[in-house]
Amino acid sequence: MAAAKALAHAPVEVTLVDRRNHHVFQPLLYQVATAALSPADICSPIRTVLRDQANVQVVLSEAIGVDVEKQWLIFKRGHVHYDYLILAAGATHAYFGHEEWAEVAPGLKSVEDATAMRRRILLAFETAEYEGNADARRAALTFGIVGGGPTGVELAGAIKEIAGQTIPKDFRHIDTATTRVIVFQGGDRLLPQFPPELSAKAQRHLEDLGVEIRLNARVTSVTAHGVHIGDEFIPIRNVFWAAGVKASPLGHTLGVPLDKSGRVIVGPDLTISGHPELFVIGDMAAANSANTGEPVPGVAQAGLQMGDYAGRAIACAVEGVPQQRRVPFSYHDKGSMAVIGKAKAVAQIGILKIGGFLAWLIWAAIHIAFLIGFRNRIQVMVSWFWNWLFNSRDARLITGNSQIEVMLPRSEEFVRNTSTVPMEPAPAEPPR
Amino acid sequence: MAAAKALAHAPVEVTLVDRRNHHVFQPLLYQVATAALSPADICSPIRTVLRDQANVQVVLSEAIGVDVEKQWLIFKRGHVHYDYLILAAGATHAYFGHEEWAEVAPGLKSVEDATAMRRRILLAFETAEYEGNADARRAALTFGIVGGGPTGVELAGAIKEIAGQTIPKDFRHIDTATTRVIVFQGGDRLLPQFPPELSAKAQRHLEDLGVEIRLNARVTSVTAHGVHIGDEFIPIRNVFWAAGVKASPLGHTLGVPLDKSGRVIVGPDLTISGHPELFVIGDMAAANSANTGEPVPGVAQAGLQMGDYAGRAIACAVEGVPQQRRVPFSYHDKGSMAVIGKAKAVAQIGILKIGGFLAWLIWAAIHIAFLIGFRNRIQVMVSWFWNWLFNSRDARLITGNSQIEVMLPRSEEFVRNTSTVPMEPAPAEPPR
Repeated sequence: MAAAKALAHAPVEVTLVDRRNHHVFQPLLYQVATAALSPADICSPIRTVLRDQANVQVVLSEAIGVDVEKQWLIFKRGHVHYDYLILAAGATHAYFGHEEWAEVAPGLKSVEDATAMRRRILLAFETAEYEGNADARRAALTFGIVGGGPTGVELAGAIKEIAGQTIPKDFRHIDTATTRVIVFQGGDRLLPQFPPELSAKAQRHLEDLGVEIRLNARVTSVTAHGVHIGDEFIPIRNVFWAAGVKASPLGHTLGVPLDKSGRVIVGPDLTISGHPELFVIGDMAAANSANTGEPVPGVAQAGLQMGDYAGRAIACAVEGVPQQRRVPFSYHDKGSMAVIGKAKAVAQIGILKIGGFLAWLIWAAIHIAFLIGFRNRIQVMVSWFWNWLFNSRDARLITGNSQIEVMLPRSEEFVRNTSTVPMEPAPAEPPR
Repeated sequence: MAAAKALAHAPVEVTLVDRRNHHVFQPLLYQVATAALSPADICSPIRTVLRDQANVQVVLSEAIGVDVEKQWLIFKRGHVHYDYLILAAGATHAYFGHEEWAEVAPGLKSVEDATAMRRRILLAFETAEYEGNADARRAALTFGIVGGGPTGVELAGAIKEIAGQTIPKDFRHIDTATTRVIVFQGGDRLLPQFPPELSAKAQRHLEDLGVEIRLNARVTSVTAHGVHIGDEFIPIRNVFWAAGVKASPLGHTLGVPLDKSGRVIVGPDLTISGHPELFVIGDMAAANSANTGEPVPGVAQAGLQMGDYAGRAIACAVEGVPQQRRVPFSYHDKGSMAVIGKAKAVAQIGILKIGGFLAWLIWAAIHIAFLIGFRNRIQVMVSWFWNWLFNSRDARLITGNSQIEVMLPRSEEFVRNTSTVPMEPAPAEPPR
């Protein structure tokens, strides 16, 4: 979308292809997963965003490959010729080669992921409410989050907040405030992309909320019953994945070198070798920033800047500017932030390093400003203010049609008093 | 929920069983289906609504039957004994014995139904945008609604409004304002439960919007390609069902007489014969109102009043009041209304019969007042005001993971100019 906008006044026809009809504001996706916002609050229909730009048409479809030589973008049922192509198909979860963990440890990339995660979080408490076995109940009330980057930190804080502040009065047989939330971080600190002081501050904020942090904890196995950290087994019924990512498989069809995350290695102008007309940007690209020589990080603002760069480069190219005269791409870091629980955050902006409530205010202002659509902004502000005032999260819907029978009461006594009913123990996995 | 609330101060333990964790405000469900509101705007978690009532516990589960003699409510994996039971499991769509139509002509009862219908409505325009065949494009831009009651009327107005006012500028190759919306009504007027003057007024409002009304049109067949009305075949790609309903199958397990819609025939105190402890209420019950002798209609306010009645009857019964002394149930009609398009409605309140904008204002005020949750009310008001001001509908998300490839471009030319590409004609069904 940034590239399309950069081409607004160029003498070109832009065709934007996306398999979704909506743009998702990813930094707030965790708030949908934790029932604070509705999907529509953080999404905008792509057609509407670009409706006033006459040289753009939008195609709802999924590209499955590129024929670099013929200059074709390939679909299941056909292809389209391009003069210039910008690939920005993003990334998906990577499970360190254990793709079978995906089912028990879902990640968070799309609106569907978010509503599925919301469902799992809310069902955990419903399951625990009528679970007679104390160990199984404890496992149902334990959440594990694999990955201590911004998504992991934000999810952990929000889940602990739901359990401790939003829903305790909703349940009769369990104390949801005893819910355990454990963050498993492979490295020796949270938020490795932040300065160490802010990592420490984030950890303190999370621990104040009651979140448990396990550093240097490399997850060796994930099942429906729990998580193995080497020889240690921790019974957890709810594991979420906020660790590795891998690039869209579209990059594999280009026939050019990829890095180990499947990203396309691009030149200083974000094109692939020998093809000045083919740009790869965003999370799909392994690029170096010309100003620092450092790799461009896989964050939203880098994607935006790359999109804008590619659009402007094409606008120049159609005016006859040759590739040799393109200014190499430079990434300008405008800062990073992560929010922790109700009203705390950590933020790095230039040389400023800020924690606590002030950082949260800055975080809120910036995220509101970047939300697309004026009405969305108002609604999100109302929701946040309301949630902050009343500890409420009004989007607590369990939707989807399956597997509601997991929490059936087993007998009359069971409904009346969960602790007196003999039940078979939940299937336990022996520690390895 | 009304019955549970009526028992708030009775010396009883209330167990509320629902297969959903949320209460849906059904009268606004069509606004979710037509992208004006988000699901969370019209839903409230049941636990939260009843959190302060200490004698209630909520069980997320699905009851599959009743053993009337043993006084058991039966689940897939067990049962619960009851002293008193109130069955209020509602109704689902009925397809006049053609259940196979359900797939091609979905109805609107749950949040899942609403988001699925929203998906179909939005995909229709996406399909038409890149459909090269003129007949197929016309069929994709034709919506049929079977049933001219309030839901049918409200859906028709809203779809026409989306097509004509919200999205015309979003598309490059089609004029969405040419979208046809046809309401098929079996009887000789719309809104048969309203006075004839209001039926005529509703029809006029809809026709002003451009909706086509087919009265005395009995649908004899529905397929993915269109609708048969006797010998006539109308090619329609998008058919929605707003006609018959049938009661929850739970009534069949009681072993008592049912009416032809599967509703349980109950006595004047809403209990079944010989079982003063078993109430059946809402859309599941075929009841007569004591004050008028007329059948109680299947509307939300009747359900609320029956729930309140059953709760109070039980509160009296546990105090020792025998069944013979129960005052028979009387339904008090507080009026009916249906909304048509952006800001018109028809309303009958006592002897008042109102149409147009004034009726819409009354409709809006009453529906806002009955929405559960103060924040929902604010958000819905903001959304409505916004939609009204800008013809916007911000919840235009196509979610769910399947079948996006239907609208793939077939060739380069196809994307550039939809009208010049030879395509096979869409599979046509011969008129019968």
